[in-house]
Amino acid sequence: MSKPIRVTVWNEGRHEKTNATVRKVYPLGMHTVIAKGLEAAGGFTVRTATLDEPEHGLTEAVLDQTDVLTWWGHMAHADVQDAIVQRVQKRVLEGMGLIVLHSGHFSKIFRALMGTNCSLKWREVAEKERLWVIEPSHPIAEGLGEYVELPNTEMYGERFDIPTPDELVFISWFEGGEVFRSGCCWRRGHGRVFYFRPGHETYPIYYNPEIQRILANAARWATPRLIKADNCPNTKAFEAIPPRTVDMTFSTGSCGSAPVVS
Amino acid sequence: MSKPIRVTVWNEGRHEKTNATVRKVYPLGMHTVIAKGLEAAGGFTVRTATLDEPEHGLTEAVLDQTDVLTWWGHMAHADVQDAIVQRVQKRVLEGMGLIVLHSGHFSKIFRALMGTNCSLKWREVAEKERLWVIEPSHPIAEGLGEYVELPNTEMYGERFDIPTPDELVFISWFEGGEVFRSGCCWRRGHGRVFYFRPGHETYPIYYNPEIQRILANAARWATPRLIKADNCPNTKAFEAIPPRTVDMTFSTGSCGSAPVVS
Amino acid sequence: MSKPIRVTVWNEGRHEKTNATVRKVYPLGMHTVIAKGLEAAGGFTVRTATLDEPEHGLTEAVLDQTDVLTWWGHMAHADVQDAIVQRVQKRVLEGMGLIVLHSGHFSKIFRALMGTNCSLKWREVAEKERLWVIEPSHPIAEGLGEYVELPNTEMYGERFDIPTPDELVFISWFEGGEVFRSGCCWRRGHGRVFYFRPGHETYPIYYNPEIQRILANAARWATPRLIKADNCPNTKAFEAIPPRTVDMTFSTGSCGSAPVVS
Amino acid sequence: MSKPIRVTVWNEGRHEKTNATVRKVYPLGMHTVIAKGLEAAGGFTVRTATLDEPEHGLTEAVLDQTDVLTWWGHMAHADVQDAIVQRVQKRVLEGMGLIVLHSGHFSKIFRALMGTNCSLKWREVAEKERLWVIEPSHPIAEGLGEYVELPNTEMYGERFDIPTPDELVFISWFEGGEVFRSGCCWRRGHGRVFYFRPGHETYPIYYNPEIQRILANAARWATPRLIKADNCPNTKAFEAIPPRTVDMTFSTGSCGSAPVVS
Repeated sequence: MSKPIRVTVWNEGRHEKTNATVRKVYPLGMHTVIAKGLEAAGGFTVRTATLDEPEHGLTEAVLDQTDVLTWWGHMAHADVQDAIVQRVQKRVLEGMGLIVLHSGHFSKIFRALMGTNCSLKWREVAEKERLWVIEPSHPIAEGLGEYVELPNTEMYGERFDIPTPDELVFISWFEGGEVFRSGCCWRRGHGRVFYFRPGHETYPIYYNPEIQRILANAARWATPRLIKADNCPNTKAFEAIPPRTVDMTFSTGSCGSAPVVS
Repeated sequence: MSKPIRVTVWNEGRHEKTNATVRKVYPLGMHTVIAKGLEAAGGFTVRTATLDEPEHGLTEAVLDQTDVLTWWGHMAHADVQDAIVQRVQKRVLEGMGLIVLHSGHFSKIFRALMGTNCSLKWREVAEKERLWVIEPSHPIAEGLGEYVELPNTEMYGERFDIPTPDELVFISWFEGGEVFRSGCCWRRGHGRVFYFRPGHETYPIYYNPEIQRILANAARWATPRLIKADNCPNTKAFEAIPPRTVDMTFSTGSCGSAPVVS
Repeated sequence: MSKPIRVTVWNEGRHEKTNATVRKVYPLGMHTVIAKGLEAAGGFTVRTATLDEPEHGLTEAVLDQTDVLTWWGHMAHADVQDAIVQRVQKRVLEGMGLIVLHSGHFSKIFRALMGTNCSLKWREVAEKERLWVIEPSHPIAEGLGEYVELPNTEMYGERFDIPTPDELVFISWFEGGEVFRSGCCWRRGHGRVFYFRPGHETYPIYYNPEIQRILANAARWATPRLIKADNCPNTKAFEAIPPRTVDMTFSTGSCGSAPVVS
Repeated sequence: MSKPIRVTVWNEGRHEKTNATVRKVYPLGMHTVIAKGLEAAGGFTVRTATLDEPEHGLTEAVLDQTDVLTWWGHMAHADVQDAIVQRVQKRVLEGMGLIVLHSGHFSKIFRALMGTNCSLKWREVAEKERLWVIEPSHPIAEGLGEYVELPNTEMYGERFDIPTPDELVFISWFEGGEVFRSGCCWRRGHGRVFYFRPGHETYPIYYNPEIQRILANAARWATPRLIKADNCPNTKAFEAIPPRTVDMTFSTGSCGSAPVVS
């Protein structure tokens, strides 16, 4: 594990430009704080990319040098070009890891990979959240205690419209009365996908050392084990298959439209 | 269970128009044979729809009256309009069942619901296939023995690029040396999806009584338990949440870009 | 589905004998209230069995006539004979449904079927519980709203040491700050197992109409699709296998202890 | 990952004593060949243990120093003491990895962890097996091609009576016509369990470099991420819970045996 993991931290970056509160919390953009957290953890080389760069900063060259991509978006999901979404999806299926953050649940890339609506309940009253570690031995939970507590968060509640996670690592408790599957793992193609709930733009979630630890753990977990292009090959038989006449027995069956094959 | 299950059998229907061999096996189209098999099983009202009908025969009205949709396509996946694919996907996520057949693995609707490439290996030499029943107590295996044997089939081999099935019912053995996950169940949204491998257009697979039984079982299994439109509601708290000051502790943390919130 | 489902409601039945509070809530035993709830739902024939009957009321004859067994135990798990546990486990693997209730998480039968400790956190201060329906289209959630609220319950908290459920239907929120996977489905052998959390002996949980509905739904879901005895057969080949010499190539390999086979 | 993984290779070791053919293939016992294969892979410190040693070689001290245990047994499953089985199971649930080999499917430890019969079909005619890699990006498949071929094996066929694997890595094709889930992963407690099919005592399977690679991969995969003793704590509330009267509403419900609580 001596070779550093190459992470690209992607951020929509619009809230930071348009909203004074967000700018106070993340003056240089959420991506810079996420990136610094990973760098501080060690073992990563991190670059950032944002929506308003050419090709959203996600050129073929960038993706080719990315082991794990993190994704934060919210107000401008629709502005992400379909061609870039397909490029990212193709790369995930080839093996690149993807970490989808918070409001990224509604991003095109997450919905394309899940196949579902990815909808949920929500409320923003700065309530308390407690993320319970359901699988303490999961690599993404490494170094955590029994739970992580966030004093002020936006609430996300069930039902979260996702495929059943391959591994469920965190379930959140919310002060207002809801629960949420907050840390969910899926394998898709040769890639690994992790959805992680915390991270609203007006709370300093990504400065939290435990959240930073989880993101570093997740990036390690999502690192490709294999990069392989998709194919659908016509293939030769291993075993001898003798010459044969096709058996049409059932085509004279009871279903009526009996075909006659000469 | 006295109310009949409303099935719409969808067929691309192009091979039957352009290929004499296919026309001999399925003179009225594969959809008619699949439909008759379901009708013979009892408990279903069946309609058919094909690619070359207006809206591919899948109007809103038709989908509203469809409990389970079966899908066979091959040479003209690209001709299926994206808007119709989205309409079908929306309906599956609301609860409609979907049974994807054979070469439908590459259909837009299956790939949209899976999020993966859905690629596989293949070979067409009329070889023998034996579908082993891995979960004999699964409703889709009801009434079957330990395996179903097909004397002549096109081969599909692993790796099949799909999300891990929620339930794996059949694994195929092929004479030429391959294996395949041939009967796969997923829950997506409120709907149930079943992929079933057998069914090449030049072999009389859909006349086979055991295959017909499996399709009837699958249609019963995929029947909606719930039909519910998607939403993403802003919601009120159940429990009292006292007024609060946002805790900015971590924003003065060690990550550098310390925000100051007045 | 016209044939009634045969349910045996099993209860340890000791608390009711020794504790006045419990006796006030369940004067005739919890099993009688659970049984009446199922009978009121319709479609069931229900019998009861308790620990202190001969063979704990679970003779071979009783199990042979039982489609679904419900299990409540707490203070006397150790008094259940191992031979009876093995008999029940064998029957579940042959196809009988099993519904494990509340403190039954620590029963011998549940632990034997799960293979894990089935431990959890707990607290008894009559706090509020809200069971969120995570999979609204699951048969066990049929007829429920988004959640079920219980004003006073014993708390069970994560981590719950179980194998990942095949299907997770309910997650509980607790007033004191915990969450719990409260409705969990597994397939084991040909049988279906449902663990359902609510049900402490000093609260009137089993009188609650929504809880009764869930138990009836669960009993329908757990009904056998197949009853089949276990075997491990020596079997003949389907395909011709030519006479052969065993290839011992690797036994002269690089691992050192090179065997010589004459 | 600089610290070596401590593996204990356990072998029943009886065939080697009683059968001349086995002794020719594995003159020093299968465990020595498995152990040497791991040592050659690097990164492991390996010890062996056998049935006929005191405590079967699996003392508390040995298990405390074992990260991953491999298990081969066949003719003497019944001779393994229940107390040792419980000790091993406890240690797996605390985090130790377990790799169960071939006929170990019927071992007490595997059945205890699975909760099912673990039965299968079998045949011994030295037929060909081809293990297809279903998940090429799984750590256990690292470095393999699309399949591994074994020229002579005992056949194991479905249905294999196991809980659905958390991850399915290999599916075998057999010359005689069967298929089998040959590489299966489960998480149990904090430990990881891998079942790997190949390995009959009269074929030189464990000398095969690809099989050795799989065993080394599996041992790395099964290495503990956490070692933690089981507990079931009574716990304090995080949130204030006001003093309350138990709501007995439902106990005067429609179910008849209305309790009166003063």
